[in-house]
Amino acid sequence: MTESNAPKGLEGVIAAETVLSYVNGTEGILEYLGIPIDQLATKSTFEEVAFLLWHKRLPKAAELKDFTAQLRAHYTLPTPVKELLQNIPPKTAPMHVLRTAVSYLASFDETPDDISPEGLREKGMRLVCQMPAIVAYFDRARKKLPLVDPDPDLNIAGNILYMINGEAPDETMARALDVCLILHADHGLNASTFTSRVICSTMSSVYGAVTGGIAALHGQLHGGANERVMYMLREIGSADNVTKYLDEAMATKKKIMGFGHRVYKTLDPRATFLKAFAKDLADSTGNHDLYELSTMVEEVMTARVGSKGIYPNVDFYSATTYKSIGIEIDMFTPMFAISRVTGWVGHILEQNEANRIMRPRAAYIGPHNAPYVPFDER
Amino acid sequence: MTESNAPKGLEGVIAAETVLSYVNGTEGILEYLGIPIDQLATKSTFEEVAFLLWHKRLPKAAELKDFTAQLRAHYTLPTPVKELLQNIPPKTAPMHVLRTAVSYLASFDETPDDISPEGLREKGMRLVCQMPAIVAYFDRARKKLPLVDPDPDLNIAGNILYMINGEAPDETMARALDVCLILHADHGLNASTFTSRVICSTMSSVYGAVTGGIAALHGQLHGGANERVMYMLREIGSADNVTKYLDEAMATKKKIMGFGHRVYKTLDPRATFLKAFAKDLADSTGNHDLYELSTMVEEVMTARVGSKGIYPNVDFYSATTYKSIGIEIDMFTPMFAISRVTGWVGHILEQNEANRIMRPRAAYIGPHNAPYVPFDER
Repeated sequence: MTESNAPKGLEGVIAAETVLSYVNGTEGILEYLGIPIDQLATKSTFEEVAFLLWHKRLPKAAELKDFTAQLRAHYTLPTPVKELLQNIPPKTAPMHVLRTAVSYLASFDETPDDISPEGLREKGMRLVCQMPAIVAYFDRARKKLPLVDPDPDLNIAGNILYMINGEAPDETMARALDVCLILHADHGLNASTFTSRVICSTMSSVYGAVTGGIAALHGQLHGGANERVMYMLREIGSADNVTKYLDEAMATKKKIMGFGHRVYKTLDPRATFLKAFAKDLADSTGNHDLYELSTMVEEVMTARVGSKGIYPNVDFYSATTYKSIGIEIDMFTPMFAISRVTGWVGHILEQNEANRIMRPRAAYIGPHNAPYVPFDER
Repeated sequence: MTESNAPKGLEGVIAAETVLSYVNGTEGILEYLGIPIDQLATKSTFEEVAFLLWHKRLPKAAELKDFTAQLRAHYTLPTPVKELLQNIPPKTAPMHVLRTAVSYLASFDETPDDISPEGLREKGMRLVCQMPAIVAYFDRARKKLPLVDPDPDLNIAGNILYMINGEAPDETMARALDVCLILHADHGLNASTFTSRVICSTMSSVYGAVTGGIAALHGQLHGGANERVMYMLREIGSADNVTKYLDEAMATKKKIMGFGHRVYKTLDPRATFLKAFAKDLADSTGNHDLYELSTMVEEVMTARVGSKGIYPNVDFYSATTYKSIGIEIDMFTPMFAISRVTGWVGHILEQNEANRIMRPRAAYIGPHNAPYVPFDER
């Protein structure tokens, strides 16, 4: 067997082929199944994007109607999972809760280990519908608010806002969330998608693969970054403090959240789109402070490090958007997970089409044939 | 950025450096921290191997005493996790249960996201002690047997047998399990260890990384294989049916479990050791049938495919050993997980020493700039 040293973090290593999303970090292009992301963000819905990623084509009108009906039939959570969410210690971070509850869902599926394409798609539908219920139930349970059951007359985005807030969702906000879900659905072999593909390459279940994806997304170098953007913005406080804060941060090498990306060396097309969206939201809600603070941070950062290819990433303006539609900071990453599960399931389907177990090598850099030294000689 | 196509399944790609285990598949060598595996299997204990993998050296006598005391203080499971195991649907596969309950443990840790070396080692201790309790409680709960609480006077292997069987463990059997735990503790960048490293590379928690490791180990191409070996041996039934069964299996291209390995092209040193161990167990328990059946299968397979470098792997004789000490077939992979968590935690510690997020690329092989076709034109 020929061995080859991969760059650290597997940077630039092509670990799989995909038709699901195309990421061009030099030109700032993102496409799902070849369709530019701005087309989908303006004309499509999250439900349609889920179909696109799982069937590799846009649905016909009747197919989308049928698919949506099937999704809505899965909004209700198994009772024991709902009960777990009421009993779980309320201080638990929502991403730990989501990971546990998604894993538990396997116990309420008659065929949790079915990895046929039909089986995977059916389980994908359960997951993308039940993850919102998990997150919303827990959020209300920890606040000691009465739980709000899902409303199958609403789309996924609207239902999330309804279950969290307990009132009919505002149309602009529901569409804003819908667009966020579209924009975050897939993005090549990011760490959580890669995790899902590695797990399912052992022929493990979709529950295992998605649980692992959630675990990876939780990390602050991945999905957890959007929460940290918001904490940073809160720390900065107001637009007139931006320059001082950022200069001090750079002088002390403190990490500035929401800038730079492994792949994008130009503007992330999702960030561009979310920025415009955040402006619309600010205009329609009359709450301009956060938007102004965000754009000021972007301006100063671009002046300082834009020439090095460090630009705002998707986390930067998604934080502003989530906050504007009233999502709690520690629910930002769960929202990301609800979106990305469509990509994970798409990649699990794709990995299973031509699977080989993902089993790289480690370079051993220690001693050989070391003695087992007896206790009295240690 | 230079991109390079990796071989399918990342075969031969060196994705990390390690000092934890050395696997030489050509010469059949396995070492932990340079110490040959047969030295550890004959002279060491599972507790000592855990220390070795987490501190990169053998403990002094006083250190091992202290480490063991700290481990035993972690035998008791948080009550809500114990309750979950009594309420979880009894037909759930134990690996799904283990994944869910380990994930849930994060809710009962005051600092679940602490990834300092001290924090990781402390959480490693919890995990390696609480995973046996999870597995044993569930096994008795599903059989409607009264639960048996852990006994802090026993070592990890003895305590597992005690909690499963409800009686003082037989010394030979406890040592057999101890040796199995030593042999399975680490093995380079296998798929579950790789999964743990990918997850923790996002700076996610050890609970997330280990939950993902369990998910990957569940797959039948990985840890799940040992269960399938036993189902195959049961299907063969007796030594005189071996030739007929294997010839038919080969003629119909049916997969024969427990043979061949991505890395080993000669005898797996763990298999060699376990075979000798299985013989001792057969002699001491007087139950020779299973051992004879296993050796007969090995003999016929070696005659047929040994020249192609296909030999019994670790799953083959571990199945025979687990069965001989009275472990249920669907508990084989959970036993593997209880052992391998020491390796996962070792690799998480190592990854965190010089971390870079694991974010490879996918080669996009679809169309570009595809139109968003309106519904009436689809």
